[in-house]
Amino acid sequence: MNTTPLYRQLAHHYLDAIRSGTLKTGERFPSIRLMMEKHAVSLSTAVQVCRELEDYGVLEARPRSGNYIRQPDTPVKPAPAAPPPPLDTGIYVGIHEQVSSVLKASQRATIKVNFASAYCAPELYPIKTLQDNMIKALRHDQHLLGAAGSTCGNSALRNILARRALTTKTNLTADRIVITNGATEAINLALRAVTRPGDTVAVESPTFYGLLQILESLNLRVLEVPATPHSGINLLALEQLLQGPEPIKALIVMPNLHNPLGSVMPDANKARLVQLCTEHNTVLIEDDTYGDLVDTEQPLSTLKHWDSTGNLIYCASLNKTLAPGLRLGWISAGRWHDRVEMLKHTQTRCCEALSQLAVSAFMGTPSYERYLRRLRKTLTQQRQQMSAAITRYFPEGTGVTHPQGGTLLWVELPREHSAMAFFHEALKVGIQISPGDIFSNARRFNHFVRIGCGAPYSAKIDEALQTLGRILKNHG
Amino acid sequence: MNTTPLYRQLAHHYLDAIRSGTLKTGERFPSIRLMMEKHAVSLSTAVQVCRELEDYGVLEARPRSGNYIRQPDTPVKPAPAAPPPPLDTGIYVGIHEQVSSVLKASQRATIKVNFASAYCAPELYPIKTLQDNMIKALRHDQHLLGAAGSTCGNSALRNILARRALTTKTNLTADRIVITNGATEAINLALRAVTRPGDTVAVESPTFYGLLQILESLNLRVLEVPATPHSGINLLALEQLLQGPEPIKALIVMPNLHNPLGSVMPDANKARLVQLCTEHNTVLIEDDTYGDLVDTEQPLSTLKHWDSTGNLIYCASLNKTLAPGLRLGWISAGRWHDRVEMLKHTQTRCCEALSQLAVSAFMGTPSYERYLRRLRKTLTQQRQQMSAAITRYFPEGTGVTHPQGGTLLWVELPREHSAMAFFHEALKVGIQISPGDIFSNARRFNHFVRIGCGAPYSAKIDEALQTLGRILKNHG
Repeated sequence: MNTTPLYRQLAHHYLDAIRSGTLKTGERFPSIRLMMEKHAVSLSTAVQVCRELEDYGVLEARPRSGNYIRQPDTPVKPAPAAPPPPLDTGIYVGIHEQVSSVLKASQRATIKVNFASAYCAPELYPIKTLQDNMIKALRHDQHLLGAAGSTCGNSALRNILARRALTTKTNLTADRIVITNGATEAINLALRAVTRPGDTVAVESPTFYGLLQILESLNLRVLEVPATPHSGINLLALEQLLQGPEPIKALIVMPNLHNPLGSVMPDANKARLVQLCTEHNTVLIEDDTYGDLVDTEQPLSTLKHWDSTGNLIYCASLNKTLAPGLRLGWISAGRWHDRVEMLKHTQTRCCEALSQLAVSAFMGTPSYERYLRRLRKTLTQQRQQMSAAITRYFPEGTGVTHPQGGTLLWVELPREHSAMAFFHEALKVGIQISPGDIFSNARRFNHFVRIGCGAPYSAKIDEALQTLGRILKNHG
Repeated sequence: MNTTPLYRQLAHHYLDAIRSGTLKTGERFPSIRLMMEKHAVSLSTAVQVCRELEDYGVLEARPRSGNYIRQPDTPVKPAPAAPPPPLDTGIYVGIHEQVSSVLKASQRATIKVNFASAYCAPELYPIKTLQDNMIKALRHDQHLLGAAGSTCGNSALRNILARRALTTKTNLTADRIVITNGATEAINLALRAVTRPGDTVAVESPTFYGLLQILESLNLRVLEVPATPHSGINLLALEQLLQGPEPIKALIVMPNLHNPLGSVMPDANKARLVQLCTEHNTVLIEDDTYGDLVDTEQPLSTLKHWDSTGNLIYCASLNKTLAPGLRLGWISAGRWHDRVEMLKHTQTRCCEALSQLAVSAFMGTPSYERYLRRLRKTLTQQRQQMSAAITRYFPEGTGVTHPQGGTLLWVELPREHSAMAFFHEALKVGIQISPGDIFSNARRFNHFVRIGCGAPYSAKIDEALQTLGRILKNHG
């Protein structure tokens, strides 16, 4: 039984809140009346709580105003060090840890120029149109928040997505599309649908570090298949692996404008890849996040176009093409549709309606295609300018990809350079880049960096690239 | 002096008699009238004695006949090593299938009156205020959609949640809260953080079917521990199970306004439960979705209040208290915080900013407490009206819970009734209810139904309850 008097228990409760920062210096402390009401205590107990906190030096009474949190005169002793948690708890070490340490180092720094983002600059996105659409939807339907959404998502949006897919010769049926919280959730659901912990999943090498984090979080084993900026995944290498002794449960591929390579698989390779996976009973997961950002007016074909057996799960996202602040992706899961729908329901129920309405209202108009056309032209130009500057400022022997679209360049430094050292040096002067190390569980890309070209070229960017070049030359 | 209430003294008196065999299974229990006479107690005390014994599972009311001694419930053991789910077919069979078939039958029907929802009627929620807040936020920040959010969520909202938790004597630190897509994602993350497929997780029986779906989707084995409308989970049964040979990795409990029982655990039980789980190294997951809907001004204490070791993961949601169209929940994961943050990042990245801004702007004002106070009063009245009508219209022998808050009634029909047949008959005339069958993997609740009281009482509702009563009397 707790023999501590009630007023002291309550005082310690609030003391903890002050120590942890939940109640901050200068803030008004709950009134006596409120404490009596919320904690069902008497007037005298509530008063004693305040007196106790005054004694601790953390509360000061201001006449005719109330009690306020104050800085204690002597430092409040920290709680005794918590015992180290047992091994199977909160600690997570792996690629996620490595990626996190890179991201956290970036968060601590003051970033002046960010080349680590795969997004376009905000001014290139139709933010205002989307926000206006949201305002219209909120005004038009005063009960928008009054009902829960459906698991699969807004049917107008699913219809638009299915219709747009026709331009890439992809047959998606609206009622077999599930709207997700970004491509991240789509890929998560795909993997949860077709694998169990311990299964092996193949990916391109290098690949987007976010994928490696997802695979690790699901306790899946990662098999990295070589890929090139020219044509993506190496099909010969893949075929050998598929014929090997280790069953490969699934393969995740970005066939169009791969992150970070920028590669686009030739159509023949796409057809062959779908066939190979079907033959070997390996589920093919297609990540088409960047496809819409291709330079040309003619859309890139999807792997899904070649799938006739339902062995392919198609995942995509609107974050990169429409707005970073959206969490909208979608999945069309072939013969795993029912299971994916079930998992979506148990994982996050459904996506909020408003974003879906705003996006439908925009994507359903010709303005959307006009916008994409403009965006593509802008990105082509930005990549060309960035690429030229890198060639100019970086040391001799630096290689830069020339992707057919998107926001990313994959830069190979002369071998003597360490991408991680480069990353840290650049961070010191407020420039953020993505070191190649995080794009693989192996050490193959430790002299590569990924450079984002989402922002319009400017004097500031030019200067930052010059600075990067200088860092490389000085630390060669 | 004996401070145990009289009814409880009497209940224990009879409990001893049953345990010792003085009163045997199948025997008739002394009538209310006899107890009043023999023990010189009031009607209400005599009734409470019977209710207490029902809670212990040793008494059963038979319509038009009286109370009888029954074999107490035994915990529902998980099925011996479940066969691996048919991963490759895309078909998913289990509780989810059963729940889905119920939900799908409802979707196909034309629903005139919906008693299956746990939400309040839309007009009871501050929908307009929230939508106005959204419009303001969209106008005020023209670049709201221009940037991706942070994994843990909006810091203003997290501060408000931490501060509100103080009223329930719960110390949450804002920077150890993660905003999630509803409580569904919170519980998902909690389970993913602390279990592996095949582990055993205990739940209350009955429990919210959504939990059973989540557990099944994660390939976890479910152990059902008896719970009563009076005081929630049976701690004696739990203790026996914890001492048993099978390790119980986690326990999910709704201590406040349990769905569907409406039970509130007494504080002493809460303290003991936290202690038990800590002692047995079983992670305690608290689902506090309904706590804010308690009738009284004084908040209900959380289990988290009693946790001093970080062994407890606190999950809650704003969907039920603020708006069904929101997907906002939160998790405070004790010593699993880092792992939960990592899993949130790899599962859905972050939640969209707009809802969080709109909710913060409302929850940060005194209007929020005023709103909750009004809502509570309304719900108290609606439940009373519904309860009275059920007693009036349903067959003799029907039992109805009297929860201290929330939107739900748990109705026990006379044993000869099938809840599932009742559900289908009701659906034929456009009335939706939740059959007890879906609240357990066992067949224990097939003569129970859950009735939602979220809508203001009306002639239409009265008529629907009359119709339900007629259906029961005709199909008895």
